[in-house]
Amino acid sequence: MSTAHGHAATIMRRSDELAAFTTVAGEITRPYGTGALLDARDQLAAWMTEAGMSTRVDNVGNLFGRYEADSQATDPGMFLIGGHFDSVVDAGRYDGTLGILTGIAVVRHLHETGRRLPFAIEVAAFADEEGNRFHTSFLGSSPVAGLWDPAWLALEDDAGTPLEDAIRFMGGDPEAIGLDTIDPESVLGFIEVHIEQGPVLQDQNLPVAAVSRITGSLRATVEFTGMAGHAGTVPMALRRDALAGAAELVLAVERIGASERDLVATVGTLECSPGASNVIPGRVYMTLDLRHPEPGVREQAYAGVHAQAEEIAGRRALDLDWSDSPSFAETVCDAHVTETLREAIAGEGIDPLSLFSGAGHDAITMANICPVTMLFVRCRDGISHNPAESIDEADVEAVLRVLERFLLALPVPR
Amino acid sequence: MSTAHGHAATIMRRSDELAAFTTVAGEITRPYGTGALLDARDQLAAWMTEAGMSTRVDNVGNLFGRYEADSQATDPGMFLIGGHFDSVVDAGRYDGTLGILTGIAVVRHLHETGRRLPFAIEVAAFADEEGNRFHTSFLGSSPVAGLWDPAWLALEDDAGTPLEDAIRFMGGDPEAIGLDTIDPESVLGFIEVHIEQGPVLQDQNLPVAAVSRITGSLRATVEFTGMAGHAGTVPMALRRDALAGAAELVLAVERIGASERDLVATVGTLECSPGASNVIPGRVYMTLDLRHPEPGVREQAYAGVHAQAEEIAGRRALDLDWSDSPSFAETVCDAHVTETLREAIAGEGIDPLSLFSGAGHDAITMANICPVTMLFVRCRDGISHNPAESIDEADVEAVLRVLERFLLALPVPR
Repeated sequence: MSTAHGHAATIMRRSDELAAFTTVAGEITRPYGTGALLDARDQLAAWMTEAGMSTRVDNVGNLFGRYEADSQATDPGMFLIGGHFDSVVDAGRYDGTLGILTGIAVVRHLHETGRRLPFAIEVAAFADEEGNRFHTSFLGSSPVAGLWDPAWLALEDDAGTPLEDAIRFMGGDPEAIGLDTIDPESVLGFIEVHIEQGPVLQDQNLPVAAVSRITGSLRATVEFTGMAGHAGTVPMALRRDALAGAAELVLAVERIGASERDLVATVGTLECSPGASNVIPGRVYMTLDLRHPEPGVREQAYAGVHAQAEEIAGRRALDLDWSDSPSFAETVCDAHVTETLREAIAGEGIDPLSLFSGAGHDAITMANICPVTMLFVRCRDGISHNPAESIDEADVEAVLRVLERFLLALPVPR
Repeated sequence: MSTAHGHAATIMRRSDELAAFTTVAGEITRPYGTGALLDARDQLAAWMTEAGMSTRVDNVGNLFGRYEADSQATDPGMFLIGGHFDSVVDAGRYDGTLGILTGIAVVRHLHETGRRLPFAIEVAAFADEEGNRFHTSFLGSSPVAGLWDPAWLALEDDAGTPLEDAIRFMGGDPEAIGLDTIDPESVLGFIEVHIEQGPVLQDQNLPVAAVSRITGSLRATVEFTGMAGHAGTVPMALRRDALAGAAELVLAVERIGASERDLVATVGTLECSPGASNVIPGRVYMTLDLRHPEPGVREQAYAGVHAQAEEIAGRRALDLDWSDSPSFAETVCDAHVTETLREAIAGEGIDPLSLFSGAGHDAITMANICPVTMLFVRCRDGISHNPAESIDEADVEAVLRVLERFLLALPVPR
């Protein structure tokens, strides 16, 4: 087994190079439908070509690099290795792109050593997973996995630009997106390498772990409406302050989130209206995001937050507008493929721990057309979605060894 | 004494007409330096001219209508009647403009009945009192009262437009603003008619009251910085959620505000960063506005909120950035002028109550150059800074009778 020496260093350097593609100088902010995203895609395509792959772009803007199977292969299905190259606002440099760069590196290593596998490898670079601009989920992988909804074309960003225009900006034909689904018969499976975004691997002193399950989420938007008024003249006792009600709910969400192991509950944003220092907030909008691997626990916590919101609204004479947002059931990774991954980990002398993922990933959509699994990499202090995201080059080397061993052990029987 | 019959109806109609000058269709939003503000000024100038006044505009964009003194007068000083014609976001239709429209109406009534007083009357229409766009206080009346600070020219609105440009848009010369101060020797006094913005007159079943004092305020901006992170992967126990800390402070502000009679404390706006549903808020900005007529009570409450912020930051491992904002001492209305106003109220058969104002007004700055007083008008449920602002035509009639009686009783000895 090659040590893939040098490729890990390349990945570290390329992560820095990709970080320079941003819409906001001084941070990494790379939403869908921007010049920064197109430039990042061009760079990834160049690296794919260098690694011996042919490239293509689909209508939503995903980039695929294909490394053909051994010409002797009788069943030239393909195995997908993927990640996404969009980012949240003020992001870190590994979330998403690490799955693409490790895929390119492992193919490049096969190419350099003149090896082909009995199946093709495609490295999938998804154009939008975070969904920050159009408030979508898995926009890039959804059409690939046959989950495209034509109604999404009318979605607008906060500036009123329709998704349809952003798709054209990316070079795609909005009407043809539904045709981009990959034939499930052609796909042996999908793997994504991703930073853990949690503290477990650091605690356990392990570089990597297989993922057995991706947690489900329940989400909502909540609006409290009271009465705006002059901050200097309305007595405290007569106020219907929407922000004070919202503040109580923020604390209730935190309390409920902490009440159960593996449960997390977050109010990620909150907006006041009118939003002036001398006006009592008349309306507050906030989001709720609640995750746990077990649906029963999720649902109970969600109902608990909803009940708190109603209690607060009633006691404070506020109107409550509670709106369920799209939610996700948990995704169970394919048992056979994940066991093959665990064997590859053990084969590299690493204790084969299994984790669940608290974050959503494209594996959720890809599971619609093929067996999926994920490989988590230790990240410092579990920090992600933050410029402080940090990984060690030595851990990336472990990823490359595990990934190559995994691919060489494929295909698993279908 | 004339009943000023008809003029009150005109004021109600003109309040509706001014409400149509807005930057946002469907609401009243009329910030400084906008076409809507210029259009409102043109309309006010036309009404001043119709009422027998000559008009002029100063460099910051204030409009003045002058009704000359009786030609027999030996001391042709002037008495100022004022209000402002800018508005907060999604405002009501009486805050500010009522002071201008009642001034115009009372002059018009003198003009129609062929009377002049032993002093001139100037109706001052201030171009910016709310300060919503440039986060200023009393931008319009400050230069008039000799309180202009040339450093303000560099202030920017949220879009980055400098105040200097907005002044030019209003037709003024930014460099000449400092020359617009009115000679204190020429001013007998200043009165503003304003809606109460509180519930006392409604409770007492009185149409109007004199204002003896304008409350002082202490203000701050507060920023909590924790650690942004992924909403699905960072365990609750490891979070440093800036919004949860801010929510605690919002509730502490509410609690402290309610702890003392006549004290009000408000968090008017709160902003989360990064501000996405799936990211733990790493930074939260919020404002504090705290008012009470007595400085000792204000300062104690302010110190109490600050101590709470520090306690929260320490307990939650958040960084706290507390910044004092410009604050205002209380303004005591002139005893002689206010007593004359109370006598005019009593002369109309109305119980002469004295109130304090919880809101800031241009009388605060004008007190720098002349004796000031204010006349409050009952408003429904104490609601202001809100489209639901409402007053009764009968109360406006009372205002006009009191105001004319007051002017006829002037000047008080200086």
